[in-house]
Amino acid sequence: MTTGRLTVVGLGPGDAALVTDQVRASIAAATDAFGYFPYVERLAGMDHLRLHASDNREELGRARQALDLAASGRQVLMLSSGDPGVFAMASAVFEVLDMATPEQRQRWAAVDIEVQPGITAMLAAAARLGAPLGHDFCTINLSDNLKPAAVIERRIRLAAQADFAMAFYNPCSRSRPEGFARALRVLQQECEPGRLVCFARNVSRADETLDVLPLAQVQADMADMRTVVIVGSSLTRRVGRHVYTPRSYPDA
Amino acid sequence: MTTGRLTVVGLGPGDAALVTDQVRASIAAATDAFGYFPYVERLAGMDHLRLHASDNREELGRARQALDLAASGRQVLMLSSGDPGVFAMASAVFEVLDMATPEQRQRWAAVDIEVQPGITAMLAAAARLGAPLGHDFCTINLSDNLKPAAVIERRIRLAAQADFAMAFYNPCSRSRPEGFARALRVLQQECEPGRLVCFARNVSRADETLDVLPLAQVQADMADMRTVVIVGSSLTRRVGRHVYTPRSYPDA
Repeated sequence: MTTGRLTVVGLGPGDAALVTDQVRASIAAATDAFGYFPYVERLAGMDHLRLHASDNREELGRARQALDLAASGRQVLMLSSGDPGVFAMASAVFEVLDMATPEQRQRWAAVDIEVQPGITAMLAAAARLGAPLGHDFCTINLSDNLKPAAVIERRIRLAAQADFAMAFYNPCSRSRPEGFARALRVLQQECEPGRLVCFARNVSRADETLDVLPLAQVQADMADMRTVVIVGSSLTRRVGRHVYTPRSYPDA
Repeated sequence: MTTGRLTVVGLGPGDAALVTDQVRASIAAATDAFGYFPYVERLAGMDHLRLHASDNREELGRARQALDLAASGRQVLMLSSGDPGVFAMASAVFEVLDMATPEQRQRWAAVDIEVQPGITAMLAAAARLGAPLGHDFCTINLSDNLKPAAVIERRIRLAAQADFAMAFYNPCSRSRPEGFARALRVLQQECEPGRLVCFARNVSRADETLDVLPLAQVQADMADMRTVVIVGSSLTRRVGRHVYTPRSYPDA
């Protein structure tokens, strides 16, 4: 029997030109692809692939099914948008392995598991904006689906005190509309009113929009589930139509 | 006269399969490529390109030369490894634009400037390790070349208190050997002895090495200039040969 393989790949933020050759080769060699509906949709028309689309909240079940199919000898892809290691499917796959029953552990033992990186949304957004993440920064998922809101608020507060630039993923969703509003309240307490806040929506797609505003003008409804928010550090500046964070940090 | 263009591109961590099609197309369309010697070396043998290699500490001069050449109508690449927006050339280009004399500003006004993202070292390293950056994380340049050591120490301390996973770039270099030793002292004060620390050296290259150790066993000389260090959060765990950070965070 062929050894099965599970390859966890990042399709990048949307533009096909932002997929790596490594991921393209894995797609060509696969027999099956699992993922959230809109990511599986990106492989529609590839006749060599059996597509297994599932809903957003089905990550653990999807990972188990993919491991089972790989254990049967198939070459299985697990699709994420962006990079699979940044708030995406790679952690879900390892969680399932970690929680496996002895019977599952035995079944999945021979599966070859590989993670292949992709262009994550914040780096695509940063490139379109200029270089807002050109100095130290942090990356925070604003969804309180899997962590307490108090942890998120504390992280944003400490990140502001450390003067990190910040990238926010999942600033809000239909079921979790409060994420960005809560983050904004912390920023308003910790940062000066002129702090630059960047909204990158549908980055790299035909309907991409980019907006940059001082914190004082930011409203809670400016981010939706397709937006990555990048908050500058105290040194982040505009030059022409671009936003960047200098490489140097002054002495205190 | 043709409008000149300056395209700031990321070549990824080393493996040619980690370059995007977007960057490959920009390389094919360019007339000139600027960059640090080893990055320019990666385009050796491309006869359509004039190569302009320079030393590590020449970022601002290199950016000015590239803008001047683009202003003359050439299609100029500025090369970074990894992603150009993460501790690389994108910020240097915008710094030069921001500091421009009126005469330079006028000369460079017509240059079309674009940044194109790449696979940055920490994401390539995370993929090889498993998913250590699968929850909130921060990214810190440990070099004190352009910022005070006290700022770096304070950031690491606050990041540990926020329980971020951390990715460290430039943990040490010949001229700045102290970076990782200083960071390690802060981690030893702030984190438990079992905290997982990952060393990824020459990621995606033939001589790649990966090591994962508990903090108590980490030595200051384990990182060099070709190493990305990833420090787990308090929840980062091993499963089999992989390291991952769960997506969930427990209630306090």
